[in-house]
Amino acid sequence: MDPQTQLSQLKSIINKYSDLVAVIGLLNWDLETHMPPGGSNGRGHQNATITRLAHETLTSDQVGQLLEQLLPYARETDPDSDDARLILVTNRLYEKRSRVPSSLMAEIAKTASDSHYIWIKARQDSDFASFQPCLEDLIGLKRQYAEYFKPYDHIYDPLLDDYEPGMLTADVQEIFSSLRPQQVELLSEISAKSQVDDSFLHQHFAEDAQWKFGVEVITDFGYDWKHGRQDKSAHPFTQDIGIGDVRITTRVLQDYFPSAFFSTTHESGHGIYGQGVAPELDRTPLSKGASLALHESQSRLYENLIGRSRPFWYHYYPRLQELFPSQLGNVPLDDFYKAINKVEPSLIRVEADEATYNLHIMLRLELEIALLEGSLEVKNLPEAWNAGMQDYLGLTPPDDSSGVLQDVHWSHGSFGYFSTYALGNLISAQLWESMLQDIPNVEDHIRHGDFNALTSWMREKVHHHGRKFEPQELVQRITGSKINEAPYLRYLTKKYSEIYQL
Amino acid sequence: MDPQTQLSQLKSIINKYSDLVAVIGLLNWDLETHMPPGGSNGRGHQNATITRLAHETLTSDQVGQLLEQLLPYARETDPDSDDARLILVTNRLYEKRSRVPSSLMAEIAKTASDSHYIWIKARQDSDFASFQPCLEDLIGLKRQYAEYFKPYDHIYDPLLDDYEPGMLTADVQEIFSSLRPQQVELLSEISAKSQVDDSFLHQHFAEDAQWKFGVEVITDFGYDWKHGRQDKSAHPFTQDIGIGDVRITTRVLQDYFPSAFFSTTHESGHGIYGQGVAPELDRTPLSKGASLALHESQSRLYENLIGRSRPFWYHYYPRLQELFPSQLGNVPLDDFYKAINKVEPSLIRVEADEATYNLHIMLRLELEIALLEGSLEVKNLPEAWNAGMQDYLGLTPPDDSSGVLQDVHWSHGSFGYFSTYALGNLISAQLWESMLQDIPNVEDHIRHGDFNALTSWMREKVHHHGRKFEPQELVQRITGSKINEAPYLRYLTKKYSEIYQL
Repeated sequence: MDPQTQLSQLKSIINKYSDLVAVIGLLNWDLETHMPPGGSNGRGHQNATITRLAHETLTSDQVGQLLEQLLPYARETDPDSDDARLILVTNRLYEKRSRVPSSLMAEIAKTASDSHYIWIKARQDSDFASFQPCLEDLIGLKRQYAEYFKPYDHIYDPLLDDYEPGMLTADVQEIFSSLRPQQVELLSEISAKSQVDDSFLHQHFAEDAQWKFGVEVITDFGYDWKHGRQDKSAHPFTQDIGIGDVRITTRVLQDYFPSAFFSTTHESGHGIYGQGVAPELDRTPLSKGASLALHESQSRLYENLIGRSRPFWYHYYPRLQELFPSQLGNVPLDDFYKAINKVEPSLIRVEADEATYNLHIMLRLELEIALLEGSLEVKNLPEAWNAGMQDYLGLTPPDDSSGVLQDVHWSHGSFGYFSTYALGNLISAQLWESMLQDIPNVEDHIRHGDFNALTSWMREKVHHHGRKFEPQELVQRITGSKINEAPYLRYLTKKYSEIYQL
Repeated sequence: MDPQTQLSQLKSIINKYSDLVAVIGLLNWDLETHMPPGGSNGRGHQNATITRLAHETLTSDQVGQLLEQLLPYARETDPDSDDARLILVTNRLYEKRSRVPSSLMAEIAKTASDSHYIWIKARQDSDFASFQPCLEDLIGLKRQYAEYFKPYDHIYDPLLDDYEPGMLTADVQEIFSSLRPQQVELLSEISAKSQVDDSFLHQHFAEDAQWKFGVEVITDFGYDWKHGRQDKSAHPFTQDIGIGDVRITTRVLQDYFPSAFFSTTHESGHGIYGQGVAPELDRTPLSKGASLALHESQSRLYENLIGRSRPFWYHYYPRLQELFPSQLGNVPLDDFYKAINKVEPSLIRVEADEATYNLHIMLRLELEIALLEGSLEVKNLPEAWNAGMQDYLGLTPPDDSSGVLQDVHWSHGSFGYFSTYALGNLISAQLWESMLQDIPNVEDHIRHGDFNALTSWMREKVHHHGRKFEPQELVQRITGSKINEAPYLRYLTKKYSEIYQL
């Protein structure tokens, strides 16, 4: 068989695999947005069945043989071509997945699906004990999973690699160990200054007007409603069901304006990324973003570097005042800008400001590593969580709902995920500095509510390539450096120096 | 291997098959309720992939061997047991599906999925020409499909049998040929009388109040929101995603009250049926209703025999007046009751009254048979439709949107489906007469908004059994007779004699 025939056979199989992955996306989206409680048991079975089929499809002997035959071809052909990258990325996925028996993958999927519903209730009731057995099962399963990747430097490596291809636990720990003292110092400087007033953000903001405003803004950003939609869910997320259908969710707090708005702009960044992948990569493993950190760089960029910037609100604040005249009509732009950038250690990660956010992540990384290593037992997790919150942020949650039960990730069995949020913050600032070299007056555009050049730049440099390049390679190609904390610290320091007059 | 081991192996495979069928259900539900237009292409691929996998799972050699080994066991064991029926029903499905190559099944699924979106637009624009190629493809594919069931009495038999197991085209034609003249005569008698006034139904009825009222009523019927939900779609439908998750949809016309209400009560009948199947039949082919006609007997029963009855409105009309005081406050119950039962030939099947509804069905059956036989070409279908409408109902549609493009079924490739609606009408009246023998005072219950005894009777006699019995067998078991038109004609005659003073 010539390489073209082999490649065509490989594509046909990975198209089927990608369809199954898209279906899993829909099953999950529906689970968290629309499924009635009675569907829970069936959904677990459906998820397990499709996950098993996807696993079997990807790890079949035929795929192994085709890849073996195609690897020399991939090395000979243009290394940046879609075909070469498709073979290499598929091979990496195959290598990774074929080590793990499909029965274990199905068990993880079933357990995660069942656990998710128990978590929702546990969080409602602030009842960690009811979720504890699920978490024990999931961690046990994830430890089993990691065993298949021996030898590893660290048991956490194979989990991290699922979200951040090529990154090691030690790499992240090194970046974080450099980042932490500088963030702590910045936080300490800010804490010494007089606090800004954000009391006017804690008023009644009607849900429909909040929704409308968010929709207007992300439409301007470039989120495409023909290829997406927005729904409500307990925890905001973005789900692609193929390139043509990238959905976002949000949750609305009627007594606190920033929650829905910044989650909407955040998810729109993920959505715009997913919608911007080159159509020719659809139905292949290249149709996803490069990694979760790259994805997060986009969500944090639209949420923070744009959405919490002064130029942005110069344009949008009059519209917001129009929608909420009694709440904001008498609040000057400058006060509003400072309020949405108020720095204050707080309990909930997704509501955290930019100066404390990464500290939430560092706590989670530490706890996940301890759980996986076995140095921390699940039953002691709430206590460890609360101690860590005290250590990192000087706070103790009043209950587990606002503590250890707050995030959806563990109920999905997603261990290894959290650090990608902090890495994404760092990358967002790296990309921003690079973009400024190509579009020096981007702040003028933003001041006019014009995001065409900015979003086009991101599409061309980041979104278009899908998963063709590994995260470190892609960041290096675009910015000339590997993932590092310097630009983000420059960004934070400049921003807060002005707001808090450091 | 002993039969128990074989049965356990068979169940494991059909559980997987049923999971895939449930997933197809979710793909379809999402397609018609929430999917953005950009998802259309991907959805076609997803649907085709899952349909192919479902087909391959059901028709595998292993299933064939297990069934061959298990059939003697099924014949020896209690013929009414779940296990015996599971083997027999699965065998019937296997026999039927294994004749057709999975490539053809996938092509039908892909074509239907693509066609559906084109139909939505064609119906919007009243542009039959844009839908014509889809319809030609689908009919060509369905003719190919039927060929695999030769020898048949009629090319339409294998299609009808997909929805109504065991029924032949000739059986339906015989029932219809007896039904048609009696319906036509009744219609003619009614037409000679002075018409009732329903002008007050054509006012503005706010969507949210319509929605609320429908929800209240079907909750009383017994529709279980923990195992279902209601959304909007272009064409109302019910979709089960396993027994625990049976969803309904409706559409709301704000300028005509009956549309949403009667579609809601209609779909709730399907939903209550789906939710009422015995839980131990979940994840097997027995978890579906006995047939579409049986399903329709339930939807028409809640919509018409209850929802358009005088005792029902005796209880609910004051509540409706409370929700719409300016529209209905001065309309007496008797006038309202007559208005919602007004008989008048009309263009749209789903809005048709009980005296003309079956005539819409007979037209569709005639056209489908002609299309499948090849005596009618798709390009001539709008003309044939309009001629038939004139013949059956004395009307000519002003455009194809309110004519040949009105129904969703053909865009799904669902040929053989329509006659089940009329059969369902007949069965609903047969079941009603049987129920009256067990619950003679059921009208008193309804007059108090109490549907417990009625819905429990339906659950026990019909819903609980799922697909264990073929439609004729089930109707015979419950009513002592095969499917026939006499009770329905008695019901219509009694009702309209009173309303129109025949």
